[in-house]
Amino acid sequence: MPIYNAPLADMRFILNDVFQAEQFWQANENLNHVDAATAEAILEEMAKFAQNVTLPLNRSGDEEGAQYNNGTVTTPAGYKEAFRQYAEGGWIGLGADEEWGGQAMPKMLTVLADEMLFATNPAFMLYPLLSVGAGMALNSYASQEQKETYLPKIYSGEWSGTMCLTEPHAGTDLGIIKTKAERNEDGSYSITGTKIFITGGDHDLSDNIIHLVLAKTPDAPAGSRGISLFIVPKFLVNEDGSLGERNPVGPGSIEHKMGIKASATCVMNFDGAKGFIVGKENEGLAAMFVMMNYERLSMGIQGIGASEFAYQNAAQYATDRIQGRSASGIKSPNKVADSILVHGDVRRMLLNVRANNEASRAFAVYVGQQLDITKFSTDPEAVKKANDRVALLTPIAKAYLTDTAFQATLDAQMVFGGHGYIREWGMEQCVRDLRIAQIYEGTNGVQSQDLIGRKLIKNNGAFLEEYIAEIRDFANNMDTHLNFIKDATLDAATDIEAVSRFIIEQASEKPDFSNSVAVDFLHAVGLLSFSYMFARIAAAAKDKSGEFYQNKLTLAHYFVQRILPELSMRIAKINAGSELVMEFSEEFFTSQS
Amino acid sequence: MPIYNAPLADMRFILNDVFQAEQFWQANENLNHVDAATAEAILEEMAKFAQNVTLPLNRSGDEEGAQYNNGTVTTPAGYKEAFRQYAEGGWIGLGADEEWGGQAMPKMLTVLADEMLFATNPAFMLYPLLSVGAGMALNSYASQEQKETYLPKIYSGEWSGTMCLTEPHAGTDLGIIKTKAERNEDGSYSITGTKIFITGGDHDLSDNIIHLVLAKTPDAPAGSRGISLFIVPKFLVNEDGSLGERNPVGPGSIEHKMGIKASATCVMNFDGAKGFIVGKENEGLAAMFVMMNYERLSMGIQGIGASEFAYQNAAQYATDRIQGRSASGIKSPNKVADSILVHGDVRRMLLNVRANNEASRAFAVYVGQQLDITKFSTDPEAVKKANDRVALLTPIAKAYLTDTAFQATLDAQMVFGGHGYIREWGMEQCVRDLRIAQIYEGTNGVQSQDLIGRKLIKNNGAFLEEYIAEIRDFANNMDTHLNFIKDATLDAATDIEAVSRFIIEQASEKPDFSNSVAVDFLHAVGLLSFSYMFARIAAAAKDKSGEFYQNKLTLAHYFVQRILPELSMRIAKINAGSELVMEFSEEFFTSQS
Repeated sequence: MPIYNAPLADMRFILNDVFQAEQFWQANENLNHVDAATAEAILEEMAKFAQNVTLPLNRSGDEEGAQYNNGTVTTPAGYKEAFRQYAEGGWIGLGADEEWGGQAMPKMLTVLADEMLFATNPAFMLYPLLSVGAGMALNSYASQEQKETYLPKIYSGEWSGTMCLTEPHAGTDLGIIKTKAERNEDGSYSITGTKIFITGGDHDLSDNIIHLVLAKTPDAPAGSRGISLFIVPKFLVNEDGSLGERNPVGPGSIEHKMGIKASATCVMNFDGAKGFIVGKENEGLAAMFVMMNYERLSMGIQGIGASEFAYQNAAQYATDRIQGRSASGIKSPNKVADSILVHGDVRRMLLNVRANNEASRAFAVYVGQQLDITKFSTDPEAVKKANDRVALLTPIAKAYLTDTAFQATLDAQMVFGGHGYIREWGMEQCVRDLRIAQIYEGTNGVQSQDLIGRKLIKNNGAFLEEYIAEIRDFANNMDTHLNFIKDATLDAATDIEAVSRFIIEQASEKPDFSNSVAVDFLHAVGLLSFSYMFARIAAAAKDKSGEFYQNKLTLAHYFVQRILPELSMRIAKINAGSELVMEFSEEFFTSQS
Repeated sequence: MPIYNAPLADMRFILNDVFQAEQFWQANENLNHVDAATAEAILEEMAKFAQNVTLPLNRSGDEEGAQYNNGTVTTPAGYKEAFRQYAEGGWIGLGADEEWGGQAMPKMLTVLADEMLFATNPAFMLYPLLSVGAGMALNSYASQEQKETYLPKIYSGEWSGTMCLTEPHAGTDLGIIKTKAERNEDGSYSITGTKIFITGGDHDLSDNIIHLVLAKTPDAPAGSRGISLFIVPKFLVNEDGSLGERNPVGPGSIEHKMGIKASATCVMNFDGAKGFIVGKENEGLAAMFVMMNYERLSMGIQGIGASEFAYQNAAQYATDRIQGRSASGIKSPNKVADSILVHGDVRRMLLNVRANNEASRAFAVYVGQQLDITKFSTDPEAVKKANDRVALLTPIAKAYLTDTAFQATLDAQMVFGGHGYIREWGMEQCVRDLRIAQIYEGTNGVQSQDLIGRKLIKNNGAFLEEYIAEIRDFANNMDTHLNFIKDATLDAATDIEAVSRFIIEQASEKPDFSNSVAVDFLHAVGLLSFSYMFARIAAAAKDKSGEFYQNKLTLAHYFVQRILPELSMRIAKINAGSELVMEFSEEFFTSQS
């Protein structure tokens, strides 16, 4: 049975020591209802929920899976009760406005709570996550009446939400969707079409499901400028808020997937279902992006959760498993073998995972803080700056954090040797469950295009320059005895600056260039970001005594020596350019090799 | 339904143009029964078998899985018939001596035949593979009588074979196994103990199963010098070769695994089963290593097969899937979108996989040729040299080829976007099935220890020096207009030479050093090997006209620009040393982060 102990000590360290969260909250009139004690209590409560409620349902949920029968979806045993308990604990609305029943907690904190749920049961977590995403989109774009109708019920967990974007022929390219929305006389719309890959499209966890659906009105312009957003409830809602008739929308089937099997991934059929427009016609994509950006950061958190879960189990296994002897002399003379922790290669794998966990977690809190500034700050300049930062870092948070976390789960699985391949140990499920995070909500390739195109080239590097300026400012103020991370971070910043200039130049001449090098660029900026996080971690740990803090410094040093060297490889690949990539004919790819 | 078309054109190119196989075979008196036409016929026949017999059973085998009921194992529907057809085609004995019913085909050729079976159905392939491995161990170490009793039946497929090494507490460290072998009065032994992870430990494909079992006699020395090898048949064999009584050995259960679900992975209980010693007491490990080295190369072939299968399906999907528009102008104006092949990032992924396939395949044939020299050459010096080369390259073939192939299957899965995560497309199964190849037959970490320890440090770099001398010799004779790959290969050789010297120095002072950097070193030597293969491919293609050959040169160039830059990262990590890796206390790893 896999273990999980919420990493509260590191969470506290990151919140309190690295980012001085309490000072930040208390200095902001819209956040001064939060203090360190509140944050601590929330994290402790979530730790209990994750350890006691969602962890025990993780493997049984994978074995049983969501089931589709006669047009309805049933979740695995225990999921309904767990969802009820989660909802009653107020967790769905943890970050939502108080006006709608939320707890108005800052993102800096909710990312940590989310991590625990993702660590212990990612398939379960997707159900409330979609509700929260739908809530955010409604909160930003829906009418007051719509908010009053839907938001309190969503945050209480009585109802849940989905996002219906993808169609069989249209995933990344939403401009070519076919789902139709025809205006009815009463101002509502009649929605017809098929959506696929709809997470939580149907289930038995809530009384109603509020679908947010992208569709095209008959006279809409072609492409992404002709997409509108609709609320399509599973059950129509009466004037008094009670449930009315069943809307003709429902699952046609569920997908059989590599992982997250307890999460129902539905094909959804809309057969003239009644829909209510959110905002104006043809302005649906912007509203959906609010939701998608939120999900994208969450996918990064899914990565951290899986990586932490994998780490804890692999570290425990490595401690318990005795096999072979230490190269530097027997360490456990009264046993037939030493624990495999004596081997440098086992340590290398564990340290890679551990470094990933600590840097990723700090980065998520950092991005969370930027999001909090955009939402709660009263200083327009600070909001503008934070908005730019969030725009730049969202693709990193989604793609880099899931790429590194996936490698981390593979490393952790490898620590188990053959046992890592066996279901009962839970590691192979962790790998399978996390794999989707690199794919959904825009593949990591698409995230990289977003970063290099919209977030770098389009603004001529301005967002990145501001970020690098902040990094330099921080590093330059570091203690000289932290030179190992200070210099590494400054060097990385210089390298990224140079390669960014090169990319912007090349992109103006060669239209295929940026697409060809985008993933390498995303990883390069990700490495710089982790270096910056370790710089902040090191700076926060340096004056404190005790092994806990000393280990932070050593791990930062390990990062510089054994992980950061990837940066020059990424840059070399970018410098190689796109010529060869584009030189092959399309026929080459399917021709017999 | 996934596709597979055997890559016969590339196989022909590698055999005939890159390695001039026919000249090699015809020049050797023990191999001159093989010519290019024979090889071609064998490859064509295997292609049909793979495409028509094993491919259609791949997904159904995964869905159904091997089943354990009441002490016996049943394979999925169709496996029994496919195994019969495979056996009747003479495929099990393709590389075996004619004396025992084999076809005496060279390894250079059988690696290509094996690739097709691994590509289309790795779980199926493991059944005959274990038979072949058992046959090799018996052929090398068993008595004439034992060979006569077992080998013809194994190669005919009437019986099959297993290797029983791992125990619940002992995997990598076989020195601590507990299975007991007590000598009976008739010279046989009574075997008692439990083995785990036994591939094909029980099944319904053959009339008898010949287990090769490692066990310890009561007075055996401790550790790996006290291990003996035994033949333990499922059914004892009467003097006339007919089957006698059931031996008390059988499966206690089968494992539920991430993949290769159609392959029965058994817990085997030996309850005083009758066993017959192979060779002498306490010399069992050497015999088992014959088998294990064979399997290790085969795992590399498993990687190539999966990577090729993944490539073909991803390339086809990318051609068929239309989404978005080319950055350099619309390519398919009469469609709503261009195929995703217009995007540099999709090409990057496909080219990474394709480059892996072509370099890996060449490398497997190269190692196969070295194995053929060890077996068939009459020149003792050539045999010695080839033995050293095989010793050096076996861990590369196993670990590097499976590491790169696993990444390749991930890239191919990513090309499918969300569909890659759905079972019906077959990509997620390909990933799950291949993952085990990095773990079993000695994890890739253990392979790396073997390379850096026994194959580098122990002989003070001699094996590697010989290999590098060959590479330099080849590269120095290359045409100047192939400088892009010539120079890259020579530079890589110089880098590897330098870092090897550094490793040998450090290892003499720091006992934990080599273990800590072993995986990076294995990848570094793997990259040099691929560069060498592309040099040979480029040299073979350069004077030929036509797009097929031009594409070989372009792909070699792509390798230099976009894959080989990893080498400097690996070297930087090695140069970072082991200090930080070993600095953390054992308690750190399980302490709350």
